[in-house]
Amino acid sequence: MDDVVKELADALPAGVVVTDPAALEKYRHDWTHDSSVGTPRAAVRAESAEHVQETLRWATRHGIGVVPRGAGTSLSGGSMAVDGCVTLSLERMRAVEIDTAAKVAVVEPGALNVEVKKAAAAEDLWYPPDPSSFEICSIGGNIATNAGGLCCVKYGVTTDYVLGMDVVLADGTLVTLGGKRVKDVAGLSLLKLFVGSEGTLGIVTKAVLRLVPAQQPASTVIAIFPTVADAAAAVIEIGRTVRASMVELMDRASINAVEDFRPMGLDRDAGALLLVQSDAPGASREEEVAAIVAACELCGAKDVEATDDPAEGEMFVQARRVHFTALEPRGAVLPEDVGVPVPQLPALLAEIEAIAQRHQVEIPVVAHAGDGNTHPAIVYDAGDPESERRARLAFDDVMHAAIALGGTITGEHGVGRLKAGCLEDQIGPAAMALNRRVKAALDPDGILNPGSFV
Amino acid sequence: MDDVVKELADALPAGVVVTDPAALEKYRHDWTHDSSVGTPRAAVRAESAEHVQETLRWATRHGIGVVPRGAGTSLSGGSMAVDGCVTLSLERMRAVEIDTAAKVAVVEPGALNVEVKKAAAAEDLWYPPDPSSFEICSIGGNIATNAGGLCCVKYGVTTDYVLGMDVVLADGTLVTLGGKRVKDVAGLSLLKLFVGSEGTLGIVTKAVLRLVPAQQPASTVIAIFPTVADAAAAVIEIGRTVRASMVELMDRASINAVEDFRPMGLDRDAGALLLVQSDAPGASREEEVAAIVAACELCGAKDVEATDDPAEGEMFVQARRVHFTALEPRGAVLPEDVGVPVPQLPALLAEIEAIAQRHQVEIPVVAHAGDGNTHPAIVYDAGDPESERRARLAFDDVMHAAIALGGTITGEHGVGRLKAGCLEDQIGPAAMALNRRVKAALDPDGILNPGSFV
Ligand SMILES: Cc1cc2nc3c(=O)[nH]c(=O)nc-3n(C[C@H](O)[C@H](O)[C@H](O)COP(=O)(O)OP(=O)(O)OC[C@H]3O[C@@H](n4cnc5c(N)ncnc54)[C@H](O)[C@@H]3O)c2cc1C
Ligand SMILES: Cc1cc2nc3c(=O)[nH]c(=O)nc-3n(C[C@H](O)[C@H](O)[C@H](O)COP(=O)(O)OP(=O)(O)OC[C@H]3O[C@@H](n4cnc5c(N)ncnc54)[C@H](O)[C@@H]3O)c2cc1C
Repeated sequence: MDDVVKELADALPAGVVVTDPAALEKYRHDWTHDSSVGTPRAAVRAESAEHVQETLRWATRHGIGVVPRGAGTSLSGGSMAVDGCVTLSLERMRAVEIDTAAKVAVVEPGALNVEVKKAAAAEDLWYPPDPSSFEICSIGGNIATNAGGLCCVKYGVTTDYVLGMDVVLADGTLVTLGGKRVKDVAGLSLLKLFVGSEGTLGIVTKAVLRLVPAQQPASTVIAIFPTVADAAAAVIEIGRTVRASMVELMDRASINAVEDFRPMGLDRDAGALLLVQSDAPGASREEEVAAIVAACELCGAKDVEATDDPAEGEMFVQARRVHFTALEPRGAVLPEDVGVPVPQLPALLAEIEAIAQRHQVEIPVVAHAGDGNTHPAIVYDAGDPESERRARLAFDDVMHAAIALGGTITGEHGVGRLKAGCLEDQIGPAAMALNRRVKAALDPDGILNPGSFV
Repeated sequence: MDDVVKELADALPAGVVVTDPAALEKYRHDWTHDSSVGTPRAAVRAESAEHVQETLRWATRHGIGVVPRGAGTSLSGGSMAVDGCVTLSLERMRAVEIDTAAKVAVVEPGALNVEVKKAAAAEDLWYPPDPSSFEICSIGGNIATNAGGLCCVKYGVTTDYVLGMDVVLADGTLVTLGGKRVKDVAGLSLLKLFVGSEGTLGIVTKAVLRLVPAQQPASTVIAIFPTVADAAAAVIEIGRTVRASMVELMDRASINAVEDFRPMGLDRDAGALLLVQSDAPGASREEEVAAIVAACELCGAKDVEATDDPAEGEMFVQARRVHFTALEPRGAVLPEDVGVPVPQLPALLAEIEAIAQRHQVEIPVVAHAGDGNTHPAIVYDAGDPESERRARLAFDDVMHAAIALGGTITGEHGVGRLKAGCLEDQIGPAAMALNRRVKAALDPDGILNPGSFV
């Protein structure tokens, strides 16, 4: 432990700061598993907001970069370690408290999404945001990335549920924003600015999250399409009249990857499948399911099945959720997250197919299709530089295809380090300059999540 | 026209810049009708984003303050004129275009909320945000204040529907943020930062608004309570299980003001009434209405009536909406907008009653009760300085009562000029400093909406 780190370690309780290589290993990679990962100078496992403040004051004093880290499930290299920086882990701060009268959860950032969901459910309440990773990702990470998920097509994303937060700024100041009130427009919308800021503006040390009455168990429609284009057309058709609570798409390669990994009888010859849920209350459920089925049939589905059995529905949702893990045996993955306006979905999916052919890489696609947000996964052989080179070209091309269609390089995973170089291509120099101005105003020394997008 | 203004007038088409006192009169007051109003040096009635850019470049060059103005319905003095400043009106920019496939409206800022609603409805789509002023306020003003309304208890506020915007910064740079895509986390959430910034960070010249499938005609429950406290308790009880699409409260003084103004048979002896709507689909409607009725009865309602007739329901909603106008004959009004966590609603309402008694002023209250957002209206005699003095004391006390209950000085109207002095009491010095840092980063010369909250 060098002298500078020792200064911090001495100021904090024993065990909070670790530096031995074996312990640090855990804080190096995030789920991106990118080869450019560094090694942290130390990891700080904060147990309170005071520890976070102490760490940031120290970091400012010494000009040391700080990489905030929740559960490390980032798919954009947002929480991966940077050489010479300190990784500030929130994993030990995980208290969850439910206020049933105000219908809010007051949570520490390290609490897992699933822990908040469970605590809410115990009071017949529901915390909707549900990234596929909900069992392994933290609320702090969700807030920092404005995480989406499967039900957000109807229920919105993380920012829609954040009513308040405590955030520690680069200089160690703790600021409380918002609170348990549902509506509050006093002052600038700083709360919303910190949501999605990917640890570049401050560290979230507490959050007040809005809860809603428990969701009805959903009905599920599985529709098999001959082509991805047909499935994409059905997504648009469904959206015309129905507010479905889930509209997920899997293409043939994804279906096969999941079947290889965990066989469950999905149709391996399908061009694509749609997994659509309705949680409409009472008798309107039937109408909504009928409308979903009709839309799929209209758009050429070969086979459409509907079930009201939540357990059966959940089995299909599991198949969708396991997708990323199912790709592991196939090789390394560059995880994409591009989105387009929903009408451009067919064009984007066609472009991705063309890109896969052009660079001779496999690109299975799943999508939060109802929102136009797709996850092409660019699979490559990590041991083969040529394969990696082609994958990186494809990765870039997919982002530019989305931009050309009026879309975004990231719908929910964040820019992180993986896409930092491409951000300006999307948002343009004026918006980029504005990002930098806000960053400079809040973190003038640039110590927060260096190497990330601003 | 002085030389400096002439420079701007010459750079813009004839008729865009006006300076004669008669024409300027229209641009002095907003709906706050505050006595501290000034007279603008000139009014610029921009017809395009270029005109806005030209105006801001000129203002920056000469260090002249600019007060952005939509339809002037601000209730916080946000758009009232400031001596020596230019008022920049967006009233002439009102194009509205609906993209049915993407389910968005692309609108210019001067378009009225009702114009967007109508254009969407023509395509069987719905733009939910519905401030009571929706027939007379502009989308630009709605975005700048993050306007709420009646249905936001279920459908959210303006920020939840803004997918993109063009904004002109103080130095005249036009920045495009977001677009027609539903999900986009690329870069900082600047879009959300501009929503609710009350014209202090930039001028919105275009917006992309999210639309949803048309709402079902709602069923309406009117419940009469012996006391305000009972009604407030019912609000909490309803929220436990039901996602009502409207939960409005009127106290006795409000009911009587409306009855005086436009008699419609409301119960003048009621302590308070709740106006609750359900737009749940199909047969679940009945269940929801039954749950609302049961909750009201449980909390001591003397009389509860339910109707499925949209016309009848709309009549009651009109009664609620006309409230502010109904107060006009009673005197001048200091319009309040304080909010608290929903469980604190009974305590806030009790505090307001105590404040009215203490300062011997009349304070009729209506509330977007489901969100804990109340509008106490402090009525006074504008011709009597002593009456005005007592009203201003009450105004202040109401804000501090809300703060003491963990609430906000403004749930939807904005801080504007009326509440600028009280903002720090709510958010504290650290958050205040953060507001100022962001303001300074984006508008270093402080030309945008001077005298407003930052
Ligand atoms: C299998 C799988 C499926 C996934 N599915 C989805 C999905 O459906 N939707 C979705 O949105 N994402 C998804 N993700 C991505 C990831 O889970 C999310 O981005 C999640 O929000 C990250 O949470 P985390 O706690 O792991 O954050 P980390 O990876 O630790 O950090 C993510 C970012 O947040 C910052 N950060 C973390 N905590 C804080 C804090 N307290 N204060 C400030 N900054 C902080 C980090 O610096 C980093 O920039 C998936 C990931 C995996 C592996
Ligand atoms: C009878 C009545 C009922 C009301 N009910 C509600 C309600 O239920 N909910 C609610 O939220 N509000 C309500 N209001 C308040 C008011 O209508 C809203 O604040 C509305 O959003 C203001 O719109 P406007 O076009 O009139 O804006 P203005 O009054 O012109 O301006 C309001 C603020 O926005 C800024 N601004 C305006 N246009 C732009 C632009 N293009 N770019 C940048 N800044 C801009 C102004 O500088 C000012 O700070 C009510 C008002 C009245 C009179």
